[in-house]
This record gives sequence, structure tokens and C-alpha cells, in this order.
Amino acid sequence: MEKLKGSLIIGQSGGPTSVINASVQGCVEAALNSPSVTRVLGASHGIRGILDDRLYDMRMEDPEEIARMRHTPAAILGSCRYKLADAMTDDTDYQRLLDVFRKYDVRYFFYNGGNDSMDTCSKISAFMSQNGYECKVMGIPKTIDNDLALTDHCPGYGSAAKYVATTCMEVGLDARAYGEGSITVIEIMGRNAGWLTAASGLAKIYGAGPDLIYLPEMHFDLADFISDVKRIYDRQRDVMVAVSEGIMDKNGTYISSYFSDTAKDKDAFGHAQMGGLAASLANFANANFSSAKIKAKVRGIELSLLQRCASHMASRTDIEEAYLAGRAAFEAAESGVSDKMVAFRREPGAVYSCAIEMVDLVDVANAEKKVPREWINAAGNGMLEPFFEYVMPLIQGETEQEMVNGVPRFARLKKIMTRDM
Amino acid sequence: MEKLKGSLIIGQSGGPTSVINASVQGCVEAALNSPSVTRVLGASHGIRGILDDRLYDMRMEDPEEIARMRHTPAAILGSCRYKLADAMTDDTDYQRLLDVFRKYDVRYFFYNGGNDSMDTCSKISAFMSQNGYECKVMGIPKTIDNDLALTDHCPGYGSAAKYVATTCMEVGLDARAYGEGSITVIEIMGRNAGWLTAASGLAKIYGAGPDLIYLPEMHFDLADFISDVKRIYDRQRDVMVAVSEGIMDKNGTYISSYFSDTAKDKDAFGHAQMGGLAASLANFANANFSSAKIKAKVRGIELSLLQRCASHMASRTDIEEAYLAGRAAFEAAESGVSDKMVAFRREPGAVYSCAIEMVDLVDVANAEKKVPREWINAAGNGMLEPFFEYVMPLIQGETEQEMVNGVPRFARLKKIMTRDM
Repeated sequence: MEKLKGSLIIGQSGGPTSVINASVQGCVEAALNSPSVTRVLGASHGIRGILDDRLYDMRMEDPEEIARMRHTPAAILGSCRYKLADAMTDDTDYQRLLDVFRKYDVRYFFYNGGNDSMDTCSKISAFMSQNGYECKVMGIPKTIDNDLALTDHCPGYGSAAKYVATTCMEVGLDARAYGEGSITVIEIMGRNAGWLTAASGLAKIYGAGPDLIYLPEMHFDLADFISDVKRIYDRQRDVMVAVSEGIMDKNGTYISSYFSDTAKDKDAFGHAQMGGLAASLANFANANFSSAKIKAKVRGIELSLLQRCASHMASRTDIEEAYLAGRAAFEAAESGVSDKMVAFRREPGAVYSCAIEMVDLVDVANAEKKVPREWINAAGNGMLEPFFEYVMPLIQGETEQEMVNGVPRFARLKKIMTRDM
Repeated sequence: MEKLKGSLIIGQSGGPTSVINASVQGCVEAALNSPSVTRVLGASHGIRGILDDRLYDMRMEDPEEIARMRHTPAAILGSCRYKLADAMTDDTDYQRLLDVFRKYDVRYFFYNGGNDSMDTCSKISAFMSQNGYECKVMGIPKTIDNDLALTDHCPGYGSAAKYVATTCMEVGLDARAYGEGSITVIEIMGRNAGWLTAASGLAKIYGAGPDLIYLPEMHFDLADFISDVKRIYDRQRDVMVAVSEGIMDKNGTYISSYFSDTAKDKDAFGHAQMGGLAASLANFANANFSSAKIKAKVRGIELSLLQRCASHMASRTDIEEAYLAGRAAFEAAESGVSDKMVAFRREPGAVYSCAIEMVDLVDVANAEKKVPREWINAAGNGMLEPFFEYVMPLIQGETEQEMVNGVPRFARLKKIMTRDM
């Protein structure tokens, strides 16, 4: 079969990860070496960059800097949270995308993101196809939330999990250094899925870490929380708690909203904006414990952006898989595959290995994979062995981050716009 | 001169650092190999452990675990914030210390801490001497605050500075990933001295980092802050700000208290407890900017305990110097020196090198070294070249942290109590 020839666009979307640029590197390096691809274009801030005709010519970049993308956090092409309308209602954006695709003869389009990005990708694929424009459209997964369906795990998760586990070990040792009683609440990203919060449980296995772990998969009850904390405090005087930002009560009310006077802002996708939960819960525990005459040092720690951008603590397994996902997406598209997302299927056996397969974008779009109930303990406040068996391989291996002058040397792109050439 | 023979006690005090255990390792390893020392005892939670006769026999520990202390964060013997009374007013604690010293024939005492700990050390030294009890008393400096007098810098600072610089680079890239406007305020430890906050300036030099840096050495003005942020926002749309937790206005009022309804708790030394400043300033900026029709993503990030316990990002220079400080303290004491703190004197020349010298404890006790005014820019919102020349050598070199199963393998001590033997 003759390969489709033309330009390629790759864009990044949604919250960055430590390894999202490794995926772009994998795709771009493969494309730069392929005779099928005339131009390799990086979209500035995802879909927005295509709509605005802001496209970087990746051939103008130093190959060494492209190689450094492997260890550079945050979306190096720029990310976005732009949501496409439904084409049936309003196809303005789609027509514009088609115009730009035609302008540059774009025949390969790759979108590197989470659920919402796969939805975007699926919609673009459908529109191009309906309009008879031949273009191979592929999704490259990334998310620290690890909540994409039809894949064993998502690039970005392993590194964030390794960072969370390591940081919880370090904080776990520090928080109890005084031996005078402490209650530490650590807040971890995850609106609806608790995969990353669950990884904090690794810290306890290998040293110090959370005694209690609350995921959004389980209903959170404030009275149970206080009684859980008190029970452990009475036993060992130092308590560490990990909570997902998105924990909710049995009525579906965010616990963070208990402590907030104003309605929470929402992002472009209608997700509530989170924050401040750890400090609120820590203060709440403090208020309850003070009345019980317990004097504990109380701390709320929010891992905030650090958990998704700490490339210095990236997992080598994750880096390699993220790179592979980008390269596999290109190779599949070049061989004629379209409208798919790269997924990982874990092979059976004692030694960890994953096969790459292609799954339908439409099946991934807007679906959410949650932590199975049977991997959470009966009380809903801790993780069980099957989860640890699942997560352990994903955090293995250390980064080979280049350090210059004592700090990381991240990739620096020239970002030369195609339209300016 | 004949060397003093007897037992040795080493204790840790104050806030932990990534390398405080390397200092204990340096002292303990030297002591275990010395014929002058009969018993090597680790005090459980500093002075409190001596008062309570809770002392670990370090000879019972596996030498490999002692070696792993080099890369283990948080005070492994346990820390404390116990403040000794003035012996003239109440010598109860001192008499008790003397009893325990006599019980174990303690002739060497080492205290690993900051200003307050050097004060404790100095008082103990004076009391022992006044009571005719011969004991070599030495201070081993540690503090991420870097505020000890008479030393070029303090072990613990270089690692925290490296972590702050690296984290600010990573966050700096992430926070601007969307290109839709952002205001990020990052809060860094430092009550009265801004050394650690100043280190965030390294991030800007080597990539992305704070555009504005506010240290407690300068009066903080909320109106100036808003106008600084707005000026930079208007120019580049993404603003990153680093603030010390202890910034105060011209009347000496903590800025954090502006945003707090209740009086802050104080610790045993009468220091106000800090926290929540970054989020408060970020929200304040948001409120001011929203009225000006600017829609920026606003974030407050508190580095909290992470900045002092992130041994995975420790500076090799710092680790080596921390170890050396512990060993030098022992060697000096064994050779007859007492009532001193180990200090670093930077040698002139293009290549960084430090000589170790001994300074009087009483001169260090309760003094505070601040960032020189001439290292801060005229506007009081950024750092100048002399500061970067000062800090650069201290963050050089990477840790050789042992990783097992994808996470750090920290030291595990048996902690066998002498009184139980």
C-alpha cells in the first residue's frame, strides 16, 4: 500500500505531565526521518494554534534540543483547554481546521492529551472523513490521572506516582521528626479517579507514608475521617493522611466545598476548580483534636503543580513508554491506521511487559477509568496488594536528566512559525 | 596531649534538612573508629532524649545503615524544639543533663542544629565548665535558612536551594503551559532571612522562574506588589512570584497576618507560625486583577516541608560538606577543642573551596545572618549577580541516592536504647 504523503501536525492539550514532551519527541523524530512527511509542524497551544495558524516548523529545531524534550516537563509546544463545539451545532472551528489542513496539506494529525483531547481528536477525525479530506488522526495518551479507558495505564502516571511515593516518604520522615505528635494531610491531584493518590501508599511500604488514603472512588465522611485519624493518633501519635482533591460525600458534594464560602469556579470543560482541601481538613482535624486535649502539629500540604512537572523524579519506564507511544502513533498512522489512540496492554507473566495496541478514539473519548473497588480496603481508607502489584512496574528506573550548573538543562526550542517563513 | 576518654552523645535539634543525617554520620563514623570514645550515643529527640535518658547505642547499628544516613532526610535520631531555661533562673534541666552525662561518663557532646541549638549548646558548655565537669561541647551547623553567623553558609542550605531552583524551573514551565495568562505565587521558607527564597532566582537564569522575589530583608508593600505584578503581566502575561514566608511591612507586621482572622500560634521559641501566604497573595492579586478585566489562572504554591526534606534533589557539595562538618567537629573535640561551632570559610579564587574553622558558640548563638542589601536589586524585588556567585557553588553536584524498587532506600536504624541493655 502506498503511504499517504503530506504534512504532519502534532499538538498538546490538557494538563502537562513530566513526560508529555517525550511523546512529542517520539512522534517528531520518527516523522522527521520519514519520506512520507513533507513538513513536521508543532501546534502552538494545541487546537488553538491550528485555528490561529500558529505552527512551529520542527525541522528548524536543533535535533539535540528535540532529544532534550525527553526530560523536559510541561507542554513544550504549549497546551490548551479549548473545547470544540459539536460539529452538528456549530462547525465554524472545524471548517477553519480544514482550511488550515488544506493550506499546509496536512495528512497526519496527532493529539497528545487526556479524555477531553481524545474527544477532540475523535470529532476532528469524523469531520475530516465526512468532508472527504484524507488525514490520519491519532491520539497519544497522557495524563497523571491515569483515567483513560482501554489502556493498562497512561504515560505521565508512572512519573507522577514515583514523585508522589518519594515525596510522601520524605515528608513522612520529616513530619514525625519531632516525636511530639503530628497530623499531616497531603492533597494529591485527581478529580474523579484516585490512581495518583493511591500511589502514596507505596511510601508506607518502603518507609514512612500515609496511614490513611481517601480516593474519590469512595464516599468521604467527615465523621469517619476524624475517627480514623483519632484511632491512629492514639496508637502512634503521628498520622499522615493522603486525600484526592476530588473526594466527595455520599451526596456527591465535594468535601472542599464544605470549607468554601463561595461557589467554585469551573474550567472550560465544566470541571470544578479545586484547591486548599489539605489545609482545610488539617485545620478541621486540629479543631476536633484540640477539644480532645491533643496537641499535635497539624499540617496541610498540597502537591499542586509539583506532582505533574517534577521531571527530575520521572520514572524511566514512563519516559520510555511515553516516547514509544509517540513513535508508535506515527508508525501506525503512516501504515494507514487512523481514528485510534495508542494504548498499552500488559502482558501476563511475572516480568512486566506491555504490548502496544490501537484502540478506537470514540471508545476512549470522555470515558473515565476508576480504581477498582477490590483494590481498595474494606474501610475505604487504604490500598490493597493488587494495586501495588499494578503500580510498582510503572515507577521503575531513574531519569537520566542532564544537569548543568547544578540544575536541569531543559530543551529550548526556537519555535519558528511556518506562517512567518 | 592525652585525649579525653569517655562516651559521646550526639543530638539533633530544630527543623530537619536533607543532609542533617550526613553530619551525624560524619561524627558517628569518626567516633566509632576512635579509641577515645567508649560509647557512641544518639540522643532521641535532642536534649529531650538526654533529659529522659533515651539514648541509642550507635555501635549496635549496622554500619551500612549508618552509611545510608548520608542520603536520608529528616532528623533520624529525632529532633526537638526544647528550649533550656537560663541556668541562673532555673538549673533543673542542667542538673539533670549533668546527672546523665555522669551516668554514662559523657565527655563529648555534639549538637546538630541552628541558632537556637547553638544557644543550647553554649549554655550546656558553660554549665558543665562552671561545675567542673570536663566535656567537649561542639555545635554542628544545619539549617536550610542559612542564617547562622560566622560561617559562609550552612549545611542543608545548598540542597534546599537546589531543590527550590529546580522546582521553580519546573513549575515555571508548567504554570505558563496554557499561554492564557497566569499568576503564580510560590511561598518559600525563611522567617527573617531570605537566603532560600533568593535561590529561586537561579530558576530564571537557567530557564523559567520567578519574575519577582520578595525577601524578609526588605519591607513588603502590598500596593507595590500589585503594581509589580501588573507591570510584568502586561508585558508577558505570565507572572511568577517567589515570597519568603516571613515577609513583613514597614511596621514589622507579617503580611500573612493581613489575611488571617485569628492570632497566629507561636512555637516554643516565640516564633510566629507561618503558612497560607502564597494562596492569600495569589487570591489578593486575583481580586485586584479581575477588577481590571484580566483573566489569569492564579495559583498559590507552598513548598512546605518538601523544600527541607527532598533528599532526592540534594546537592552533592552540600552532602559532602555536611558529612565533613560532623567529622570535623569530632576531630576538633578529640584534639581538645570545645565550646565551638564548625564553620565554613570560603577561600578566595575562581574555583570554589572552603576551609573549615571553629568559631565561638556564644558568637553564633541567637545571631542571624541576613542577605546583604547590596545583593538585592534597588526595587527590592529581585536578586543581583553577587548573590548568584555566592549560591552557585553550593548547589553543584547530584546525589547518589540508592533507589530500590523505584523509590529511595533510606537508612533504617534499630534504635536500641542504652538504658534497656
